[in-house]
Amino acid sequence: MTINVVTISGSLRKSSYNTALMHALPGLAPDSMRLTEAPTFREMPLYNADVQASGFPQSVIAFADAIRSADGIVIVSPEYNWTIPGGLKNALDWVSRLENQPFKEKPVAIQSATGGPLGGARMQYHLRMALTFLNAFVLGTPEVFVGLAQTKFDGQSLELKDEATKKAVTDQLGAFAKFVARVKA
Amino acid sequence: MTINVVTISGSLRKSSYNTALMHALPGLAPDSMRLTEAPTFREMPLYNADVQASGFPQSVIAFADAIRSADGIVIVSPEYNWTIPGGLKNALDWVSRLENQPFKEKPVAIQSATGGPLGGARMQYHLRMALTFLNAFVLGTPEVFVGLAQTKFDGQSLELKDEATKKAVTDQLGAFAKFVARVKA
Amino acid sequence: MTINVVTISGSLRKSSYNTALMHALPGLAPDSMRLTEAPTFREMPLYNADVQASGFPQSVIAFADAIRSADGIVIVSPEYNWTIPGGLKNALDWVSRLENQPFKEKPVAIQSATGGPLGGARMQYHLRMALTFLNAFVLGTPEVFVGLAQTKFDGQSLELKDEATKKAVTDQLGAFAKFVARVKA
Amino acid sequence: MTINVVTISGSLRKSSYNTALMHALPGLAPDSMRLTEAPTFREMPLYNADVQASGFPQSVIAFADAIRSADGIVIVSPEYNWTIPGGLKNALDWVSRLENQPFKEKPVAIQSATGGPLGGARMQYHLRMALTFLNAFVLGTPEVFVGLAQTKFDGQSLELKDEATKKAVTDQLGAFAKFVARVKA
Repeated sequence: MTINVVTISGSLRKSSYNTALMHALPGLAPDSMRLTEAPTFREMPLYNADVQASGFPQSVIAFADAIRSADGIVIVSPEYNWTIPGGLKNALDWVSRLENQPFKEKPVAIQSATGGPLGGARMQYHLRMALTFLNAFVLGTPEVFVGLAQTKFDGQSLELKDEATKKAVTDQLGAFAKFVARVKA
Repeated sequence: MTINVVTISGSLRKSSYNTALMHALPGLAPDSMRLTEAPTFREMPLYNADVQASGFPQSVIAFADAIRSADGIVIVSPEYNWTIPGGLKNALDWVSRLENQPFKEKPVAIQSATGGPLGGARMQYHLRMALTFLNAFVLGTPEVFVGLAQTKFDGQSLELKDEATKKAVTDQLGAFAKFVARVKA
Repeated sequence: MTINVVTISGSLRKSSYNTALMHALPGLAPDSMRLTEAPTFREMPLYNADVQASGFPQSVIAFADAIRSADGIVIVSPEYNWTIPGGLKNALDWVSRLENQPFKEKPVAIQSATGGPLGGARMQYHLRMALTFLNAFVLGTPEVFVGLAQTKFDGQSLELKDEATKKAVTDQLGAFAKFVARVKA
Repeated sequence: MTINVVTISGSLRKSSYNTALMHALPGLAPDSMRLTEAPTFREMPLYNADVQASGFPQSVIAFADAIRSADGIVIVSPEYNWTIPGGLKNALDWVSRLENQPFKEKPVAIQSATGGPLGGARMQYHLRMALTFLNAFVLGTPEVFVGLAQTKFDGQSLELKDEATKKAVTDQLGAFAKFVARVKA
């Protein structure tokens, strides 16, 4: 049985370590897992109920459709100012208003990469809270924190080079495959 | 001595209870406090280091200038999905990248209004963390949580009607005036 | 099929609202749910690895055995100083060191009662974190926060009187029964 | 002017890395700072309002007196199960009930050491919340997280050997000296 997983990067810049980590996932996933990247949230306006009143933007609908279609989601995000990046949070705020809220009962795993030593831990616990409100099933452990990211990716190609990180990611994706099967309705 | 306070609403919609609460502050502040609203963050693009590389948007510069010029800041924000609204967080993410980061050693007080009973508590503790990273001095207590906001503002004029809320706001602004004086360099 | 649930009160005092809330649970649970109170953690010494080295106290073993034997756990706890009471946390710290850690993959629901208006929300998010580390499956929503507890229980008998609270508890226990079935291995 | 600082270790075991870190502080503090260890909280019973009703234990009174007498406090604590150790939290719960609550307007700095890579970060943000409720003034940054503690202390003497950690501690204590002076009434 194939597990279809949609991946989301919390960063918009081209040479983001988090996007690079997201790109590394297919090579580290179990055979049963097929990974696809969610459409970007780059075009979403800042959430505003007055804007919503004249209809959800197409970028929001496409993002939500991708989430709905998946068996599970992996979010890979930087930490900005000790919490969730505004852009990623804005995307969650938009989809949370949809009638058929896409994260409902959806299994989610979280990963993060940062230049500092903690690897995004503070962000992850805030993101868990948002996802719990959205009725997602958030994988507990193992967690993936990629600290000192500049030492773990190739400086030119942004390929993930660090073996300990590869193992941590592989372990989490393996656990996530089991978790997705377990909480399936 | 006059204390110049800049106020920020975390909501962009016109009939926001949080913006209504922000509008009520001047009438509840001590005589020594003069309140001015920060420029809107509505025009800010989603934060992206590649965009930053070609210069900070004017909306970011104006927002940061207002914060820098103040003796203290009051943020009045809704809670979206148990944490900080993406739009407000995006504004913080932008100003956090400025060389002369505007929240550095700036006294800040937090208020929040929600339709639910908790009044934004979950959001406030996340916002405290972001502001601590930004080296702001965040007022501890008293806290202001305006739960069941629809019962506390006039349905037409959005004027704050609830006496207990008025007292809580008055108490916090009084404590904030003392706090600003205490932590002044 | 009967769902065996073990209940834990985070308070040690006799006339605790949280213990009173725990006592109200059997009358509000679905027919399929049988509730039993965990042995008290009152006798546990403060956790100390040097004490552990000479053997786990009997009170710890009894508490852990009760948790292991259950299909699910409901923790009903006050909030002390915006987070988990030390006594309850101490009990978690002790059982977390057991080889067959009792919360592993155990479904858990959380409730809390406080004199203040927030009903223990701050505590609940910290408790969720501890339980996530322990690999419990923590019910997301609905949440139960019993604020202004002194108005919701009979002053003499400590019987739960408030109908809205009864409904919130009934709703959560119903959702918990489904959750226990869903995440069962 | 001498700054009198009282230090508290969150661990009770003899060969604790956190207690070892606490012992290293006097050698890394600015000349103006004099450090004294708080009396142990080892003898405190689990907090129980019924016990409190017959008087505060002597261990609680001694602990609170030490805090009150200080110009500032440094808490050095492990993280248990992603949050504050039960024993340390129990000590805070006890002193929080005293009429002349000792943490009121008291400057506090936090440090933590753990065997894992994050160095106690999750615990620190929960401890900040408890201390904010207690009206302490909690130092923002720089933070001290001693991850992989087993590589940073001498295996026999438990002396702090790691130069980067020594520098981080020295930097924080220097910043704390300025912070204590700034927030002094």
